[in-house]
Amino acid sequence: MQLQEAKKLEKSIFETLSKHIKKGEKVILGLSGGADSVFLFEMLKKFAEKTPIKIVAAHVNHMLRGLESEKDEKFVKDLAKKYKTEIKILKKDIAKISKKLGRGLEETGRQVRHEFFAKLAKELKTNLVLTAHHADDNLETILLNIVRGAGLKGLLGMEEKIKHKIANTDLSFLKPLLQVPKQQIENYLTHKKIEFVKDLSNLDETFNRNLIRSKIVPTLKKINKNIFGTVAKNVKNIGETLDFLDDEAKKFIKKSEKILKEKNALIAKDFREANKALKKAVIRELYKVNAKTLKDFGNAQIDEILKVLDKNIGNKSKKIGPITFSVNKNRIKVSVEKKHKKVQY
Amino acid sequence: MQLQEAKKLEKSIFETLSKHIKKGEKVILGLSGGADSVFLFEMLKKFAEKTPIKIVAAHVNHMLRGLESEKDEKFVKDLAKKYKTEIKILKKDIAKISKKLGRGLEETGRQVRHEFFAKLAKELKTNLVLTAHHADDNLETILLNIVRGAGLKGLLGMEEKIKHKIANTDLSFLKPLLQVPKQQIENYLTHKKIEFVKDLSNLDETFNRNLIRSKIVPTLKKINKNIFGTVAKNVKNIGETLDFLDDEAKKFIKKSEKILKEKNALIAKDFREANKALKKAVIRELYKVNAKTLKDFGNAQIDEILKVLDKNIGNKSKKIGPITFSVNKNRIKVSVEKKHKKVQY
Repeated sequence: MQLQEAKKLEKSIFETLSKHIKKGEKVILGLSGGADSVFLFEMLKKFAEKTPIKIVAAHVNHMLRGLESEKDEKFVKDLAKKYKTEIKILKKDIAKISKKLGRGLEETGRQVRHEFFAKLAKELKTNLVLTAHHADDNLETILLNIVRGAGLKGLLGMEEKIKHKIANTDLSFLKPLLQVPKQQIENYLTHKKIEFVKDLSNLDETFNRNLIRSKIVPTLKKINKNIFGTVAKNVKNIGETLDFLDDEAKKFIKKSEKILKEKNALIAKDFREANKALKKAVIRELYKVNAKTLKDFGNAQIDEILKVLDKNIGNKSKKIGPITFSVNKNRIKVSVEKKHKKVQY
Repeated sequence: MQLQEAKKLEKSIFETLSKHIKKGEKVILGLSGGADSVFLFEMLKKFAEKTPIKIVAAHVNHMLRGLESEKDEKFVKDLAKKYKTEIKILKKDIAKISKKLGRGLEETGRQVRHEFFAKLAKELKTNLVLTAHHADDNLETILLNIVRGAGLKGLLGMEEKIKHKIANTDLSFLKPLLQVPKQQIENYLTHKKIEFVKDLSNLDETFNRNLIRSKIVPTLKKINKNIFGTVAKNVKNIGETLDFLDDEAKKFIKKSEKILKEKNALIAKDFREANKALKKAVIRELYKVNAKTLKDFGNAQIDEILKVLDKNIGNKSKKIGPITFSVNKNRIKVSVEKKHKKVQY
């Protein structure tokens, strides 16, 4: 990497950071000690020279690799000291917890990290958490979503900024490196002679993600050298299309509600005559508005509801999660279960 | 493959065939001699026992593998004889033609085959050409389109039936095996002890397609055993969304034309205020209606037009192929070059 390239990379990341972080704001940085998070730490420190912000590093020692895990912990502690940055450490035996919960290491690790972030956010009075997911991570996620059939939304990959309610705390997860390929991160660190921890346990990587990383992504890069630019273009196109669908769904609902003078109500005849993609978007929108989440609500659930709403034989209803869609003559109604406890994440 | 499975496979293909082929109709079958086209031949013969149709096999000897090519020609001739089916053979030195035209072997081979089909169609007074593209071919095409960034339309893959004007002849290309995985075809042939030619030159396969076939598809199958079902579901969802976009674009154009009392005209203000995905769909629709093709018209071209139409600084226009989009005050006009010679394919 040339100096010029490094400067350009820094500039593009500073632009992303200044879009999302206000002067004087406090941010929590997820710091594993690997190349990606060490790079993000470096970027944040440089950014803070121009725009004063308060950085708190957060490290979870997953205790999965014995002495190695201890070494990693020491590495991030030393790094934070060198960078004169506050660091918070959590040490948890993920293997033990995972066994107890009967869940996978990956899922357990993420849960523990997220709860740690939520605790810190409360303590530090901030809600902004930064993670170092990059363009390769995003491409892998998109490919996984395609293979799993996650629908158009899945083709968008990760969101640069996303809100999650964790342990009753509203967190904003920011991923400022989402447009940066792994290779650029490594080139930068080599160029600047910045050290990082190698061979971290691939705790965050499922078997399938590893297959995609090792077998598919290298081939895609061979076919298209500008694969990340292409992915970004695809994501933009799909995003525009989904925005359009969402807008039209909102308009459709509003129009019905106005005529029926009732919230969460649709004119059944109009609904049945609508285009199928619009119908699905309307169902998704009504679910989202009422359940305040789209968790566990995908194409399969939409199809079940659609089957009921498309029929025209007396009263029918379908309940998914806390939400009931029901048809009564020419009216479709959506209602929420009163006692509904919000799903955490 | 069990007898039961073979019966089920036959039934699903017969259903597709009966959707598209009328009793007594004449069809041209592209017959290379490889597993796929031999399988399709077998299916057509069985189908014809119940629904009488006239099959004409068409084979192009590409003369690319010396004696092997001659053997293949003999194989398909013998097969047609055994099946009591008329066969037409074209022998062309594709390597020589390719050199002369300065085009790739793949492109040249396809052009020669297509022109042969067109000639036969005229001679035989039919326009229906059947090819043996299957689910693996389709998945490869979709992946290639993703990697190339072909937009949402590319994610749909191949169309089961598509019209092409070739050498002034309207042809309908039908791909009845698009839902059938390669593995099923091979299992069927093994089960029924049906012979076919192996190691055909991969004339139709680009380097990139081969990479996808050998490196990516096997991994995808490892991750998702039902990958073809998932792809079919994805295609359905995306198809519905694109139908919606197209419908809305048509409505948008119609509304403008009605108000302006003029064909191919848009109200500039309304256009500029529309959602970006809708704008793009409107441009695509206007181009398609006027140019009668979308060949060489993709996202890049749409973006160029959009840039001009979105401006509001005096008269502007942009010509792509035979079509000119122009802005005059509050009116966007689309006009076609009079002398436009239709692109063949």
